[in-house]
Amino acid sequence: MLRSFGSESRVPTLAAVLDLIRERSAVSRVELAEATGLTQATMTHAVRKLITLGFVHEVGTARSNGGTPRRLLGLRPEACYMVGIQFDSFAAMGVVVDLAGRVLAQQALPAPGERQPAEVVVEFAEHVRAMLDSAAVAPSDVLGIGLATYGPQDRDQGVLLTPQPTREWLGYPLAATLAEATGLPVAIENDATAAGIGVHTLAGAPSSFAVVFMSGGIGSGVILDGFPYRGVTSNGLELGHISVDAFGPRCDCGNRGCLDSVAGSIAVVDRALGDRALASRLGLGSDPLTDFKRIGRAAIAGDPDAAALIDASAQMMGIAAVTLVNLFDVGRVVLAGSAFTDIGPIYRDAVQELLDESVFMRHVHNVRVDLADDVSLAAAIGGAVVVLRNLLESPNLGGRVVSPS
Amino acid sequence: MLRSFGSESRVPTLAAVLDLIRERSAVSRVELAEATGLTQATMTHAVRKLITLGFVHEVGTARSNGGTPRRLLGLRPEACYMVGIQFDSFAAMGVVVDLAGRVLAQQALPAPGERQPAEVVVEFAEHVRAMLDSAAVAPSDVLGIGLATYGPQDRDQGVLLTPQPTREWLGYPLAATLAEATGLPVAIENDATAAGIGVHTLAGAPSSFAVVFMSGGIGSGVILDGFPYRGVTSNGLELGHISVDAFGPRCDCGNRGCLDSVAGSIAVVDRALGDRALASRLGLGSDPLTDFKRIGRAAIAGDPDAAALIDASAQMMGIAAVTLVNLFDVGRVVLAGSAFTDIGPIYRDAVQELLDESVFMRHVHNVRVDLADDVSLAAAIGGAVVVLRNLLESPNLGGRVVSPS
Repeated sequence: MLRSFGSESRVPTLAAVLDLIRERSAVSRVELAEATGLTQATMTHAVRKLITLGFVHEVGTARSNGGTPRRLLGLRPEACYMVGIQFDSFAAMGVVVDLAGRVLAQQALPAPGERQPAEVVVEFAEHVRAMLDSAAVAPSDVLGIGLATYGPQDRDQGVLLTPQPTREWLGYPLAATLAEATGLPVAIENDATAAGIGVHTLAGAPSSFAVVFMSGGIGSGVILDGFPYRGVTSNGLELGHISVDAFGPRCDCGNRGCLDSVAGSIAVVDRALGDRALASRLGLGSDPLTDFKRIGRAAIAGDPDAAALIDASAQMMGIAAVTLVNLFDVGRVVLAGSAFTDIGPIYRDAVQELLDESVFMRHVHNVRVDLADDVSLAAAIGGAVVVLRNLLESPNLGGRVVSPS
Repeated sequence: MLRSFGSESRVPTLAAVLDLIRERSAVSRVELAEATGLTQATMTHAVRKLITLGFVHEVGTARSNGGTPRRLLGLRPEACYMVGIQFDSFAAMGVVVDLAGRVLAQQALPAPGERQPAEVVVEFAEHVRAMLDSAAVAPSDVLGIGLATYGPQDRDQGVLLTPQPTREWLGYPLAATLAEATGLPVAIENDATAAGIGVHTLAGAPSSFAVVFMSGGIGSGVILDGFPYRGVTSNGLELGHISVDAFGPRCDCGNRGCLDSVAGSIAVVDRALGDRALASRLGLGSDPLTDFKRIGRAAIAGDPDAAALIDASAQMMGIAAVTLVNLFDVGRVVLAGSAFTDIGPIYRDAVQELLDESVFMRHVHNVRVDLADDVSLAAAIGGAVVVLRNLLESPNLGGRVVSPS
């Protein structure tokens, strides 16, 4: 979200211009000014800064309409690299991307489970080194690490503000400790927002859409012209904790009938475990995310009990998606997160059906539901890109990134 | 919502600077630049434009810390006037405000009911003339008329995109016809968003908050640093049409268990009318908004049946307010709209209680619920201010205002 003061003028300009240069491969300053609506002076200033950073260089000239030749700008994808890690208790996924957002290495990391944060951070640091090795990227060329995870969180301090999965995680200096262990700056970001930034990065063109993200929990994000909606403390869009049933069960968060506790992957697994025949038939009893994927595959294969559980969950997600669209007024909803790995199309179709029949402004514009190009990587990619975004958005080119001391 | 391109740089700057000058009464360019984080050059440019428009003038000099004297800027409240009309089928309220947002005239207008739009527009035009007379404002000094009403709507075309209250209203050239009838430019705006702009105007300082608006229907708005969140077509924040009960009754909009159909003023009245003893005791049978206010006053006076209806409605509104806060992450919710005239404190306390026990980020920051300073006027005042905002936000100083041909 672009705020009215402070961050307004220079800040998102750099990220937006860099996105455009990436998208168009070879583009003149005049074209960039036209595409953004920014003045030539502002564009010249932004381009100079991107060249100074080494992110952009001149790649040739083009003569248009017999006028003076225009110098064309291109991205230097090898100018720097970013690491992204998306994690919750049940799963973790890491990527190394270049400045163009291309994935050079990816790896499933051991899930934190209920282990101490210090232990998990050490493990993350080892895997970061291994991923950089496999991508043949020198740590000195890495801009930083972006941790995409659940909220509430304090992005400025790089800490989680919730005792999940255990009390020790609440306020633990997550970013600072990982920065210390790797020698790299570390930023944290909401996982669903990161997924939105990842989807935007994979798509290239700036666009506006909502993301519904499901891993262990359900979250959401809203991207407007390529930039995330943030609210006052970047702790909004908690779609998993909106009530879809005012008379439903009390959730740990204090609310009643929360989407997460009624329809999230863990709720689906809990319900399946309550049906002993089903649980035994599907061989359940691993971690919830693995069990959820098993239920999903069984539903696809035609198991009626598994299908009933998934359908009920997808219906509730559809109702929550209608709420999201009726409140944020977007024309597209993208599903992301590893819970959608196999079962994504079932959720996509159910959510689309609900939106088609219930969205308030459906006679003004339609709303399309898509699966992210890579449901299980989008948030990790977005986490990596957040490191770059934070750098470009901070006046001193370093805010919201906790550097090693 | 400030978008990343086009409207980004100049546009909200003018409105934001004008707001600051209004708030501080006499302020130097240096202070304005400091308060906004804008550069001195941008501020000089913005101030020059506001002086050219006649909205701002120099009101003296001040010497600070022994430096060179700084010229102080002040608002010219009499530079221009705006008319605002908030209406739905059941009620209409008009105001004349000056450039400082002060109300010079206010009047309850006849409600449209189910009459033809052409008839209602003629009536509105007559009342605009009468209000300007009573405020002693010449039409030539009026910037325009802002119509704050329900959605979906097309702000650019100045038409409603819904067959409410009758089919004839769908696509009727509302703004153009009223412009023709009055000789004044006309803008339309969502009523809840207008209420948010009105609350911001009455408060002075830029701030971030959500509005829950209730008249005949329920809507909402989100104001961030003084500017409304808009989404892609300005048709978001339809709080009345989010589901609070996935298993609830089907609403006309297609969704199930909508807040409006479960807890809105009309739903409360319908339930009261179903209880013959209560309906007769309270003398119900007028228009729904009048009946709702009667039920509210009976609840305050201790009628247990009326109190039960109001409490149930307030509980559901609280659940929807939790959704609004969990998604938009704001620290304040303001209740506005004439339905809150007497019963406001009951709703305020119920919503506050729900937020205190259920908001997801309540351990990060608290969320306060307030009644608007003037629940029944806020949207009309905001509608008037929208005319000014649209002028300042348009590159050609005229966009989104439909002028008489």
